[in-house]
Formats: sequence, structure tokens, C-alpha cells
Amino acid sequence: MNRIINDPDHVVEDAIQGYLQAHPDYFTPTDNARVLKYPAAPVSGKVGIVTGGGSGHEPAFLGYVGKNMLDAVAIGEIFSSPTAGAFLDAFKAADGGAGVACLYGNYAGDNMNVKMAMKKAAAAGIAVKTVVANDDVASAPASEIDKRRGVAGEIMMWKVGAAAAAKGYDLDGVIGAAQKAIDSCRSIGVGLSSCTIPAVGKPNFHIDDGKMEIGIGHHGEPGIEVSPIQPASEMAATMLDFILGDMPLAQGDEVAVLVSGLGATPVMELYIYYGEIARRLAARGINVHRRYVGNYFTSLEMMGVTLTIMKLDDELKTLIDMPSQSLGLTQVE
Amino acid sequence: MNRIINDPDHVVEDAIQGYLQAHPDYFTPTDNARVLKYPAAPVSGKVGIVTGGGSGHEPAFLGYVGKNMLDAVAIGEIFSSPTAGAFLDAFKAADGGAGVACLYGNYAGDNMNVKMAMKKAAAAGIAVKTVVANDDVASAPASEIDKRRGVAGEIMMWKVGAAAAAKGYDLDGVIGAAQKAIDSCRSIGVGLSSCTIPAVGKPNFHIDDGKMEIGIGHHGEPGIEVSPIQPASEMAATMLDFILGDMPLAQGDEVAVLVSGLGATPVMELYIYYGEIARRLAARGINVHRRYVGNYFTSLEMMGVTLTIMKLDDELKTLIDMPSQSLGLTQVE
Repeated sequence: MNRIINDPDHVVEDAIQGYLQAHPDYFTPTDNARVLKYPAAPVSGKVGIVTGGGSGHEPAFLGYVGKNMLDAVAIGEIFSSPTAGAFLDAFKAADGGAGVACLYGNYAGDNMNVKMAMKKAAAAGIAVKTVVANDDVASAPASEIDKRRGVAGEIMMWKVGAAAAAKGYDLDGVIGAAQKAIDSCRSIGVGLSSCTIPAVGKPNFHIDDGKMEIGIGHHGEPGIEVSPIQPASEMAATMLDFILGDMPLAQGDEVAVLVSGLGATPVMELYIYYGEIARRLAARGINVHRRYVGNYFTSLEMMGVTLTIMKLDDELKTLIDMPSQSLGLTQVE
Repeated sequence: MNRIINDPDHVVEDAIQGYLQAHPDYFTPTDNARVLKYPAAPVSGKVGIVTGGGSGHEPAFLGYVGKNMLDAVAIGEIFSSPTAGAFLDAFKAADGGAGVACLYGNYAGDNMNVKMAMKKAAAAGIAVKTVVANDDVASAPASEIDKRRGVAGEIMMWKVGAAAAAKGYDLDGVIGAAQKAIDSCRSIGVGLSSCTIPAVGKPNFHIDDGKMEIGIGHHGEPGIEVSPIQPASEMAATMLDFILGDMPLAQGDEVAVLVSGLGATPVMELYIYYGEIARRLAARGINVHRRYVGNYFTSLEMMGVTLTIMKLDDELKTLIDMPSQSLGLTQVE
């Protein structure tokens, strides 16, 4: 295991210390060691934006704390939900009196812990509403859309929700915008190699050399199909077909495209892949309003790529265009 | 080989197409398929900033084209120098009449091709001066400092040189600032695993599982020592000792720190590592004025980390603080 760590059981604590040392402009510690907040948070009268999730997906989740982005984040162990206490303390850190939008991904542990935290928040007089991301088309059929997992579409949901809050939307308005954002997103991933959680010390799952797993989840959840690795062009076509089969797009539609590496895939390959996606969208007359290509939502050192397409309307365009600053995504104009 | 590519012999072309599709705000193509320029370049009366180098180090080199960053870049095959023709065309793309500063790394191929390109540029009436980065302390002893390779310190050299040009320094002034920047930088890398060039199809070199190679180069050039993998704390101490042995720092000195992953090392580990560096610098009373932690200068899917420390004076602080925008480094304030 070729890792840069100290105690394998303390990698999350050690990483948080590094983040705090490196970026006091982005992170203020709280009384809860697993909750970080943006220094300016909470902003009085603004809806607080919170997420939380397992570690190992960096820059997600904490890397999206920032200006016009997340106000606070709850941090879990690698690939594990934060505790209910961490979600609750993140709500408290983000609440400026206008309530908190908790925008998170559809995983059993997160669902349970957010629900528990919301009960305690209500008792403490903090209004919390949620949007549960479910953009991964491979994780359940369209007829069971509420069983789908949230993946990189969460970043679009955070960006839109945070922009709405910054523009002064009230809690219901923020929730509505974030819900629209994730409802307009579809994602699918392809995995080419596994990853190793330091405290476990052996690969989390297995992909044969030369094979790819279409529809794999961010933690190695089984995908739809294992096949020999396709050229980038076929891989792009296959993945796009899954998305467009689930969310049809017509000529003239406008979209945002997010291509994220899973960690170890070289960045140049993400651009080869994006080139294939861009050509196919252009051929269909679909206009790419914004695109993001890079390591936005990873799974330790997995090789592979995820594709997220978000269908835009005027409101979503305005919100996604809002300048923002965070480690994971800084948008100047 | 778990890669997202089409033809292994055309990965650079295919990646460039993806970059052009994704980022028209950063890249304008030129008549030379291996030269990209910033859309606003050349700026009349401003010294043009050019670099070039092999592909596979993304976001280096092309990812540092941008506002108050590089004006043009010459792009080589993976781990290979751009041609003399590409350097020449990059000079032409960047020259706004005030000359061109070519800021590149000390590798035989780059040295040869830049020299040839400069002769042709002189014949074409373009003034070109160079700074050759040699920040890698592991690549030659201090007595042979001009044999040292350039590594991630190049990013600091580009940022400082580009800021000087943006502030209106003339060509000699820009060269002086960039030279001071790289003279103030020391870097060292540790490799934990190898990488595979797609057209070669097998690992470029070999590191035994559980071993680390201190002082390894960006292309797997042999390092100083192979040892069992150390905990992050020892690794940080070892690397810092090499740098401070070469460039002593005293209490009260101010530095910029750049920690870059080599590609496949999870970002959370880079922060664990940065935390160790930050603690050690603080204990010595050295003030970290700026820090950069992430995948700034990679080597395909190598695992490992490089540490760069730049000693700052008032001029370097002013220049490094200048806001800039590029894919690899956007600094808002």
C-alpha cells in the first residue's frame, strides 16, 4: 500500500489538520472536530448551505465550502456517513436564522443520520430542509428513481443551492432550486481500477486488468456491466446513451457538463474523454453552456471517470453562472 | 493498462482537442497544432511569457496559460520536449513587441530545442531571453547546480515572471524576477509507484511495493535513495531536511510552499503531508506566506508527492500575490 499517511486509523483527522493549516481563508474549525465552516458563516438572514459525506472523495465534500458555496460540512470516515452529531453541529454552524438547506447524497447512513440530526435541530429551533441527490442513472431504474445514489451531480446541486441562498432566496426557494438542479442532472461512472482504504489495507473491490465496469458507484458499488475496456470514443458514447436514455435532450437544449476523474486517471485522459462528449453533444445540436473537467469528486486512487449532464433552464443558468470560490471549484466570471 | 484513450499514439492530439473544446476562454489554437495561446495574447508592449514541456504532467504545462500567467505554451509528446518549431511558434504567438521570456525546465531536449528556436526567433526579429528552472535538489549536488532538473518550482517561476510582465516590467526585468524566483526555490520528490506511457504500454520504471524513492524525477529519473515507505511525518522531515540543507532558512523567513501530488496519490494524503510540513516550518519560526496543495505538476498516474519551498522577499511576495487565472492555479486575491 503506497500511501502518504501516519496512523491508518487517523487519516481523516490528520487530513483535516492539513486543510486547516493550509486554508484558514476557507475553513474555521468548530467545537466538533468533524465539522468545518466557512469563516464568514453563518450569515445573518441567509439560508445556510450544508452537506456532509464520507472522506476519500476529495475535493468533495469539504473542498466545496467557500464563498457562494457551502457554509459548513460534516465529515465522515472514509466512505462512511458523518454522524448525526456532526450533521447537527454543521446545521448550527451554518444557521443564520433563515434556516438550513442540507443538500446531500442518497446513501443509507447519510439518510439515517441527517434524519436524526433534523429532529434535534427542530428541538433547538433550527429549520432544516433537505434535498437528497439521486443523479446516478446506473444505480436503479427510472421507476425507482428514489433508490438512486447521489454522485458528482451533487456538486451542481451545491453550486445552484448556494447561489440561490447568496441571492437571497428563502429556505423553500433554496430547496426548490437545489431540487430542480439535481432533478436536471444525470450521472454515470466507469471504473477501471479499485482503491484501498488505508485502515483496511487491501483493495475495496476488484476490477480485472483490461476490464471496465460501467455504472460503478463511488465506493465500488457494483455497476451494470463489466466489459473489456473500450476506446474513449466508445466509452463516451456508451455513457452518453445511458444518460440520454434516461433524460432525453433535444436540439437547442442547453446543458452543463461535469467530467470528473475518480482519482488516479491522468487529467489528459479526462480531456480526451471530454472531447468525445463535446463532439457528440454538438452533433445533436445540444449547447454546452458550462463545462467542468477535472478531479471534482474522486474515490481515493480509483481509475475511471464520471459523466454528469445537467439540463439548464434560465434560472439554473443564472444560478450556475454565479461567481464562487472554493478549493474544488472557483468560478471567476 | 486501464486508460481512457483512443489511439495510444495520438493521446496528445486528442487531449489538446478536449482542452480546446472545454476552455475557449483559456486557449486559442494557432497554426501549429502543438502551440496554444491565451486568447488575449499577444498584448502589445507586454513581455510575452512562454513555456513548453512534455505532456503527461497536467495541469502543467498548458494549464498555466491564463490571465497574468503564461501567454503561450509549446506542447511535447508525453515526457518529451516540444520541437524547436513549436517553441518558435509559441514565441511568435506571445510576442507583443516587448520580447519574450521563455521560462522552462532544465532537460537536454528542451535546452536544445529552445536554443534552436531562439536562433530562428532572432532572425525573425523577436527578442527572446530564458530562465532555466533547476529547483530539484536531488538531481545534482549544489556544486553542480546548473545540472539540476526543473520540477514544480517552475510553477512559481511562471507565476512570478508572468506577474512581473503584467506589471509592466521590461524583458530584462521579467527575466530577473523569474530568475530570482527559481533561485529562491528548492524542490524534492518522493515516488511511491510508477506510471505507464500509453504508447509504450508498460511501466516506465519500477518501484517495489512498500518502497519509496526519495529524489525521484518527474519522469522516473533515479533518486537518491530507495527505502521502505516512511510514515508521512518522517517523509516530510526527510524531504524538508534535504531542502533546508541546500537552502538554509532562519527564524522569521517567509516562504511559499507548494505540495504537489504526482497524479494518483489521493488528495487527502497531500493534506496529511502538508500538515506535517506546516508543523515543522512553524516550529522553526518560518512563516508560510502562501501555500498550494494539490495536483499541480503530475506524472501521469505516479503515486508520490513533491515539496517545493520558495524563500520570499518583498518583490517576490508582491509578484506571487498578484491575482491570476488559469486551469492549474487561480488566485482571486
